[in-house]
Amino acid sequence: MSLRYLTSKLAQQIDEELMGSVGHFSIDQLMELAGLACAQTLATVYNKERYPRVLVCCGPGNQGGDGLVAARHLGLFGYKPTIWMPKPGSKEIYQRLKVQCDNMRIPALEPSQDVQSLKEALSSSDVILDAIFGFSFKPPARPPFDAALPLLTQSGLPIVSVDVPSGWNVDEGKIDEHALEPDVLVSLTAPKEGVRNYKGRHFLGGRFVPKILEEKYQLNLPEYPGISQIVELPRAEKL
Amino acid sequence: MSLRYLTSKLAQQIDEELMGSVGHFSIDQLMELAGLACAQTLATVYNKERYPRVLVCCGPGNQGGDGLVAARHLGLFGYKPTIWMPKPGSKEIYQRLKVQCDNMRIPALEPSQDVQSLKEALSSSDVILDAIFGFSFKPPARPPFDAALPLLTQSGLPIVSVDVPSGWNVDEGKIDEHALEPDVLVSLTAPKEGVRNYKGRHFLGGRFVPKILEEKYQLNLPEYPGISQIVELPRAEKL
Repeated sequence: MSLRYLTSKLAQQIDEELMGSVGHFSIDQLMELAGLACAQTLATVYNKERYPRVLVCCGPGNQGGDGLVAARHLGLFGYKPTIWMPKPGSKEIYQRLKVQCDNMRIPALEPSQDVQSLKEALSSSDVILDAIFGFSFKPPARPPFDAALPLLTQSGLPIVSVDVPSGWNVDEGKIDEHALEPDVLVSLTAPKEGVRNYKGRHFLGGRFVPKILEEKYQLNLPEYPGISQIVELPRAEKL
Repeated sequence: MSLRYLTSKLAQQIDEELMGSVGHFSIDQLMELAGLACAQTLATVYNKERYPRVLVCCGPGNQGGDGLVAARHLGLFGYKPTIWMPKPGSKEIYQRLKVQCDNMRIPALEPSQDVQSLKEALSSSDVILDAIFGFSFKPPARPPFDAALPLLTQSGLPIVSVDVPSGWNVDEGKIDEHALEPDVLVSLTAPKEGVRNYKGRHFLGGRFVPKILEEKYQLNLPEYPGISQIVELPRAEKL
């Protein structure tokens, strides 16, 4: 039985069931475990001695929240993260997550539509955590993210993308030329249809899927090793 | 600078600041990370091949919640946990955490004042996770926990205690003869005054303390290794 790749519609449905009447998880719980998995993936591939300065790029939705959690854990791991979150979500949870980063003395760029500060931050970073768009992304990317994606690519820095590389079509993959080409991807809960042929190092995180949901949707998740919150998936065959 | 041991009063104060106006953490976040650290500690010392059946003993307070989270993660790690929670707290969070365990098909003993079912469960367990009393415990232990503690000891099973071994005085240590003598202890946030001379294997979990609180209270926490959520402390000298 092979690992199931989720359509954007099914991903949305499972997410609702995890937090709703089936899973009874709070968003705080899931975001904490998801963000931890993202931080652990980055730290597994890019060590803090050579890649201490992580630019954590956060979108306006839940994935931006995962990014804030990841930034905090990266700070706890001894990295020097910086947050770029140009359009912070209005939900109360993002404000709490941001204060938690402030309390770790993690700097953040001033929210702005102008990408000049992002450009400068890129020139003093070692690696990017892309937590901009997730499985609910609908193209096109809106400002300032439309301008940001090419800058991230042009920086030449290694990129770790969360769940779906930003700019990719969740179901169809990389069809937009400005979409990112990350070196590392960490899928959450289960990988999405669009990344089926993703060629970089691919990890799975979100070791929280209850048995009843895994069975209901026949996710066929791989076995996570030991006490780890992440598992590396075999690389896709070159086409 | 040596690791600070917290009085029960200071532990209470730091806990309030973590969740209140300083830390802005939700209880869901802290309990998730604390319970994960407990599960990881047990799994680090007692492997699932030899010790698959974990009896997770949960008290009526927040530590019982940590126990429920730990039980869920142990289930995800491939252990066969069973929950004993004779007096489930009334807070809504405990109900959610319990459903999350149900969704992992983790069995629970029927809540009861009678310890007969506990006795039977002990005879088919390999290791105990003691999440009964934490840093807000005030003696004496009330029923059915007063009867349970000697049963846990008599079982001869290895015991992993969370934060403070159940029955110990948080500030003064083991002064009650019925208090547990765990083989392993996982302190959360920072160790408590009463366990300063604890002689078993001692881990620290709760890798979430913000820098500003660590500095304010001069906790002098040890460095956690890599991406781990736990760190083993040096053993106390034999007196």
